Amino acid sequence: MAKELKDLTKRSENYSQWYNELVVKADLAEQSAVRGCMVIKPYGYAIWEKMQRQLDTMFKETGHVNAYFPLLIPKSFLSREADHVEGFAKECAVVTHYRLKNAEDGSGVVVDPEARLDEELIIRPTSETIIWNTYKNWIQSYRDLPILCNQWANVFRWEMRTRMFLRTAEFLWQEGHTAHATKEEAMEEAVKMLNVYADFAEKYMAVPVIKGVKTANERFAGALDTFTIEAMMQDGKALQAGTSHFLGQNFAKAFDVQFINKENKLEYVWATSWGVSTRLMGALIMTHSDDNGLVLPPHLAPLQVVIIPIYKNAEQLAAVSERVKSIVDGLKKRGISVKFDDADNKRPGFKFADYELKGVPVRLAIGARDLENNTVEIMRRDTLEKHSQSLDGIEDYVANLLEDIQNNIYAKALSYRDSHIRVANSYDEFKQYIEEGGFVLAHWDGTTETEVRVKEETKATIRCIPLDGDTTPGTCIFTGKPSARRVIFARNY
Amino acid sequence: MAKELKDLTKRSENYSQWYNELVVKADLAEQSAVRGCMVIKPYGYAIWEKMQRQLDTMFKETGHVNAYFPLLIPKSFLSREADHVEGFAKECAVVTHYRLKNAEDGSGVVVDPEARLDEELIIRPTSETIIWNTYKNWIQSYRDLPILCNQWANVFRWEMRTRMFLRTAEFLWQEGHTAHATKEEAMEEAVKMLNVYADFAEKYMAVPVIKGVKTANERFAGALDTFTIEAMMQDGKALQAGTSHFLGQNFAKAFDVQFINKENKLEYVWATSWGVSTRLMGALIMTHSDDNGLVLPPHLAPLQVVIIPIYKNAEQLAAVSERVKSIVDGLKKRGISVKFDDADNKRPGFKFADYELKGVPVRLAIGARDLENNTVEIMRRDTLEKHSQSLDGIEDYVANLLEDIQNNIYAKALSYRDSHIRVANSYDEFKQYIEEGGFVLAHWDGTTETEVRVKEETKATIRCIPLDGDTTPGTCIFTGKPSARRVIFARNY
Repeated sequence: MAKELKDLTKRSENYSQWYNELVVKADLAEQSAVRGCMVIKPYGYAIWEKMQRQLDTMFKETGHVNAYFPLLIPKSFLSREADHVEGFAKECAVVTHYRLKNAEDGSGVVVDPEARLDEELIIRPTSETIIWNTYKNWIQSYRDLPILCNQWANVFRWEMRTRMFLRTAEFLWQEGHTAHATKEEAMEEAVKMLNVYADFAEKYMAVPVIKGVKTANERFAGALDTFTIEAMMQDGKALQAGTSHFLGQNFAKAFDVQFINKENKLEYVWATSWGVSTRLMGALIMTHSDDNGLVLPPHLAPLQVVIIPIYKNAEQLAAVSERVKSIVDGLKKRGISVKFDDADNKRPGFKFADYELKGVPVRLAIGARDLENNTVEIMRRDTLEKHSQSLDGIEDYVANLLEDIQNNIYAKALSYRDSHIRVANSYDEFKQYIEEGGFVLAHWDGTTETEVRVKEETKATIRCIPLDGDTTPGTCIFTGKPSARRVIFARNY
Repeated sequence: MAKELKDLTKRSENYSQWYNELVVKADLAEQSAVRGCMVIKPYGYAIWEKMQRQLDTMFKETGHVNAYFPLLIPKSFLSREADHVEGFAKECAVVTHYRLKNAEDGSGVVVDPEARLDEELIIRPTSETIIWNTYKNWIQSYRDLPILCNQWANVFRWEMRTRMFLRTAEFLWQEGHTAHATKEEAMEEAVKMLNVYADFAEKYMAVPVIKGVKTANERFAGALDTFTIEAMMQDGKALQAGTSHFLGQNFAKAFDVQFINKENKLEYVWATSWGVSTRLMGALIMTHSDDNGLVLPPHLAPLQVVIIPIYKNAEQLAAVSERVKSIVDGLKKRGISVKFDDADNKRPGFKFADYELKGVPVRLAIGARDLENNTVEIMRRDTLEKHSQSLDGIEDYVANLLEDIQNNIYAKALSYRDSHIRVANSYDEFKQYIEEGGFVLAHWDGTTETEVRVKEETKATIRCIPLDGDTTPGTCIFTGKPSARRVIFARNY
């Protein structure tokens, strides 16, 4: 492992390769035998579980409940909403048969041609259609509203180019689907969930995000408005970390979901949907990690503290183990996850490198000399700084240090991001800034045509129209036409 | 709802219909637009979530970690293990294409014939094959063992006859897949997880189970031994509630997974797999519920206590609400989930019936008279008994009552089961007992032939060879040949 660690490509050499190697070397995920599908390994899954647990708590605190809807969707459902079918029907996994049979030549199994489905089924790329088909039966009156459901599920989109966590054919996510009696309430919900996502990203992932609205061109297929949180990776590229959609009455109309409102009139139901996925793992990795491996925010690290004994003989190990026992208990009492790694088949140097690679926020190393001095060597993963610390009150010291690391990596990411947002006032300036990396605030005339041409020429897309910030009008950097306000352009994942 | 409740079929009239109606009326699940697939509604999912949370805790306490493997499995993988393909390849969902396109007549979307997969993919009916194909890369030496992975996932089996929770095409489950260096260790793991399942069933679901081994005929396809926990429903039929398989080296051989053992020799890895599914919901419902609706064990009830105010005017409601506040706080402090239902658009009688239908273990009703007397009317769902109780120390009283209910419904189920296990000493006796319902302990000659013929004639299957109990030899009730011990026969779900 120590050797493999040295082999990790440096970010400055090849950021993309650094990411791919890190995902594998840190035991987060690996490619599977199925094209575009990854295996999420136990260490990677443990991080995802912590994300899930926290998000689920936040959803429940905002009044949502979980449910589960079918994996397969009748093909015809996709066609019901015109934009939706354009966006999702094209690259999806199609189930056409329900049986295999033994091959006549004994070579294995083949599809039984007699077991062909009357109507093909699609593995859900997202569940608006099957869910709104279900909601139809749940909603008669305004008294049945709102419905605030979330689903934790796997979804499938037949992506041509895949990268682990960032873009995979199958991925894990949650999808909230809510139904409301009024437009205002649905819009409020869409914004509320955007704020939940932003809070989660900033307070747990320690990833600063910009909240904004997508342009028509980048909108979810079937939405009237798509809200987004956009994060900046260490190479200056943007990553869309979560989206929340105001769907208007589109899906209610497509599936004929009407209700009797308070005025006793029949009306179509208002909808939102919102989701984050295992893509967040990619954002987490790319925001904080360094050339030594992962850097995990303490609030999401499966293992927050590791303690490594330094010893020459069994007697020394016994003495260290004895002293460490109360430290472990003290940390656990504070809700801190800790491991005492006394495995004797690996040297301390190997363990140090391994836990650095895995991004464990705090490492304590303790030997015979430390016991004599009543000290411990403490290292923080974010800065790699180490120092000797008194064992008196070490539990509180570590608890505070974890919070300090959480705050520090957020501040570091924020500082990096803010120093890589630039204002461009001409197309030449724009092209130069995009080429150099980072976000560019520029005026845009509001047309899809301009957006598409800029993308063709620079590979930069409009990440969002920010909800906050400068709203001074100006002229489009590309066409010179009037612009309502600056928007954020960047190359993106 | 009160009206609908009255419409619930009685168990004595038609047990099967009672079950189907209860699942829908108690808002647990409903049929979806996709054949054989159900929608798990929020209330049903909340129970499943509590099951998941507890099982997950128990898996982690026994050293397991979670991971995630692909939904789709290459068709050829299924053929690698001879028994496995016979058991699982036949009725499964087959993905043959990866794209839809607009129909030329504008009528929607059709499968794009040019997007045919070179090799078809199967939606996992279980994941041994894809997981062992992955483990191959994780295991080189005995130092890499054991691997103790679990996965929470959806699986798909194209069942012809489906019933909600009991047998659905798609269902949710967990599947543990472990890899070991020795046969003994793998066998120990398989038995350990059987015991975890039995503990969970008895302590949380309050469902008594019989632990046993399946006959060769009833074994998991690819296993050398299948351990099972069998529960008895209120109609005397058996329900297989969980299984744990000792897979020997079958999958290691099929996927060529070898390791260097401590003696420095190459050896095939030993395996287990074990799973429980949303079928447990069916077991839970059918074991405890009655003609008034669900009866939920307090340890798994999403809502453990409901408090309903009885009032004639706003003043009375205010007084009740004021007093209830501290009760709610006191219960929450004890970790009890409680709801004060002061909705004013439903009468108390309606609420009573609704919470009975939903199986909420304890109901408190409190009115102006109660306040004067410092009392509350308390009803326990399991016995439907109600009485007036002093408000002094009500929180502790309720906490104890919940435990009492948990124990009582277990004892009741145990008593029912034990009084419906009979010993048959002749085939005539056997047929009579099977017809009357319940489990029958009978001698069997150990052959699949006899087992199959008994099933054909009586619809009874061998549920298991119990791990505990009488091991006196005898003669087979069907053939008169020697029998090593009595086994359990029953009709089953």
